[in-house]
Amino acid sequence: MEKPILMGPGPAQLPWRVVRAMMQPGESHLDPAFNEGVLDRTLFRLRDIFRTRNEVLTVPGSGRVALEASVTSLVEPGDPVLCVVAGVFGDWIREMAERVGGAVTPFEVGLGQPLDLERLEKTVREGRFKALAMVHNETSTGATYPADAVGRIARDRGLLFLVDTVSSISGIDVRSDEWGIDTNMTAPEKAFGAPIGLALVSVSPRAWEAMESRKRPATSFSYDLLRWKRMWLPQERGGGAAPGARRTPIVVPIHLVYALRETVDMIEEEGLERRLARHRQAGRAFRAALKAIGLSTLPPEDLASDTVSCIRLPEGMSAKAVAAHVRARHNIVIGTGMGPLMDRTLRVGHMGVTASAQYVLPTLIALESALSANGHKLTRGEGVKAAQEVFEE
Amino acid sequence: MEKPILMGPGPAQLPWRVVRAMMQPGESHLDPAFNEGVLDRTLFRLRDIFRTRNEVLTVPGSGRVALEASVTSLVEPGDPVLCVVAGVFGDWIREMAERVGGAVTPFEVGLGQPLDLERLEKTVREGRFKALAMVHNETSTGATYPADAVGRIARDRGLLFLVDTVSSISGIDVRSDEWGIDTNMTAPEKAFGAPIGLALVSVSPRAWEAMESRKRPATSFSYDLLRWKRMWLPQERGGGAAPGARRTPIVVPIHLVYALRETVDMIEEEGLERRLARHRQAGRAFRAALKAIGLSTLPPEDLASDTVSCIRLPEGMSAKAVAAHVRARHNIVIGTGMGPLMDRTLRVGHMGVTASAQYVLPTLIALESALSANGHKLTRGEGVKAAQEVFEE
Repeated sequence: MEKPILMGPGPAQLPWRVVRAMMQPGESHLDPAFNEGVLDRTLFRLRDIFRTRNEVLTVPGSGRVALEASVTSLVEPGDPVLCVVAGVFGDWIREMAERVGGAVTPFEVGLGQPLDLERLEKTVREGRFKALAMVHNETSTGATYPADAVGRIARDRGLLFLVDTVSSISGIDVRSDEWGIDTNMTAPEKAFGAPIGLALVSVSPRAWEAMESRKRPATSFSYDLLRWKRMWLPQERGGGAAPGARRTPIVVPIHLVYALRETVDMIEEEGLERRLARHRQAGRAFRAALKAIGLSTLPPEDLASDTVSCIRLPEGMSAKAVAAHVRARHNIVIGTGMGPLMDRTLRVGHMGVTASAQYVLPTLIALESALSANGHKLTRGEGVKAAQEVFEE
Repeated sequence: MEKPILMGPGPAQLPWRVVRAMMQPGESHLDPAFNEGVLDRTLFRLRDIFRTRNEVLTVPGSGRVALEASVTSLVEPGDPVLCVVAGVFGDWIREMAERVGGAVTPFEVGLGQPLDLERLEKTVREGRFKALAMVHNETSTGATYPADAVGRIARDRGLLFLVDTVSSISGIDVRSDEWGIDTNMTAPEKAFGAPIGLALVSVSPRAWEAMESRKRPATSFSYDLLRWKRMWLPQERGGGAAPGARRTPIVVPIHLVYALRETVDMIEEEGLERRLARHRQAGRAFRAALKAIGLSTLPPEDLASDTVSCIRLPEGMSAKAVAAHVRARHNIVIGTGMGPLMDRTLRVGHMGVTASAQYVLPTLIALESALSANGHKLTRGEGVKAAQEVFEE
């Protein structure tokens, strides 16, 4: 039996050429053929996808390690940090900042609800925060938040702006520099469609300054980003590495870097704008299907994510049962909810290669079948048809 | 041109079947087919290689992340920790413990020199330490330290015993339970011969207790091992995960876990004892060759590592020049020194597949040629011959 197709909120289905890119002998992480030729070039090219002129770094990990590396490198004990908490992932940033001793103020947003920008601006104005952290695309609720508007509020008061773009970047537009993002924290296992195992972070000059002026070193040795500046970034790019002496302060998973490079190739071949448009279309198609079968996403349409749809289930229906049906009968993996939404929502990813009719339509067939089997009244094929119409626009 | 053969102190040359094991579609880290079927079984089988009945965990990272996860999970601000510092890697543990606020006493050992057990015992007796940390096989000097004897000293005084076995395990005998190791901290990219990207740690019941009784949570969210106990270890094995609800607190690199599984297969097929004997033979052969061409390892014979030989170069010869010759003319990567030994020593790995005549003999040919070209007087072939005699014993 083939392994199931991944239509959950991540990891995303991998293109075969990305898997194949891992067919490499080992290499020394100190070898310039790898260091300069593969790693640095790949990271440099990522800047176009991040829409930044800042340096992009990669460390072993995953999305949450990207958050942790950034938070641990920037937040000192006692530092006042405002965290937008609109779901599980926002709450993780809060916990990370608290673990390193930050004085965290959570800015709570109802699950799947809009972020009240006026209230946020007031909170920022009345507080004395060093940093503001938020999740761009909250994977637990399928809501995309206006990081541009929040960035403006942060910038107006001189706050560092930390943004989790784990499930958005390369699927939903992320404009690091335009939005004033100081650390853009993400990972390749979602919309990039690359394997799990790396964390990605871009770092602004202001964020480097904040790290340089810390009173004492970050609690982490391996994930202290300042060590990357000193050992990895070359002097001509503002770093501390003398010519020919660049080293990553931690060995980087060679094979995953090759996979990431292949992913960057694919994104460049497609073109970022076309890729973003493809995700917009897939998100719209998926939501049109939901509407046609009498369902909706948890967040309102204008907040609904184009990479992860969080479906509000009819009263009394079990997310676990629906997902199990989809898996057992159709060999497709979709996600159930997280936290308080655990058994009340389903989460379907349409990101990377799966943001397409090829993957979305069979998933809708499976979903119609599973919902029907679990007692939801629908006319079979209506959802699929509605989605197909969007794909054929 | 083929990529160079890796005969440095790590990462080690990868067997092709290990590389091939990464040819896998993605999978959800939440899928029991992966979680229970691949990840848990592989970790469970690792216990035989660790020679432990404790749980073995894996997190994204590398050797130093294994150290950091353990140190961060166990050491609280103010905790008195004794760190054996016999080289670069011992010094990293010291730095990690200091970064999380530990009150660290370094126990300095001269580079490549023996560890004075009497002095250590006295230090332990006169201090009030919570933990003792050491590196079993110091990759920077090629010296293997008596972790069994040190473990006895730690145990006698009730100290937690943290051991870095990054470049020893599966190549040099490591007896976690017999030696009283509370956290065995290692990684698959050295003697295992698996790709970079994972950290491995085994945790004793005493270490869990120390984590449970912390005053405040570890500074790391992603690498707090206690979260692994609560979310990943099943209740019947002392953990907190209810049946069917096991989750890794961080997504684990699927593909690297498949590679690790293949490595475990290979180790089991060969048999651990035979594998260790093969490494002993390779180490001995390499040192016999050095002697035959008028060189020696940095540490005395009885300390010399069977996985990494650190060669003391003749006065005035540049390690960089020798390594460059070996790379350019023979397409073999060997390592130069680290820290103060940077240009005065060479480091050659003979671990995993390269602990064999197949890899050691060509490396010796290359080394003889490079040393000769750099002015060392030797009779070509003498080193190779001496090594071959050991391999043919």
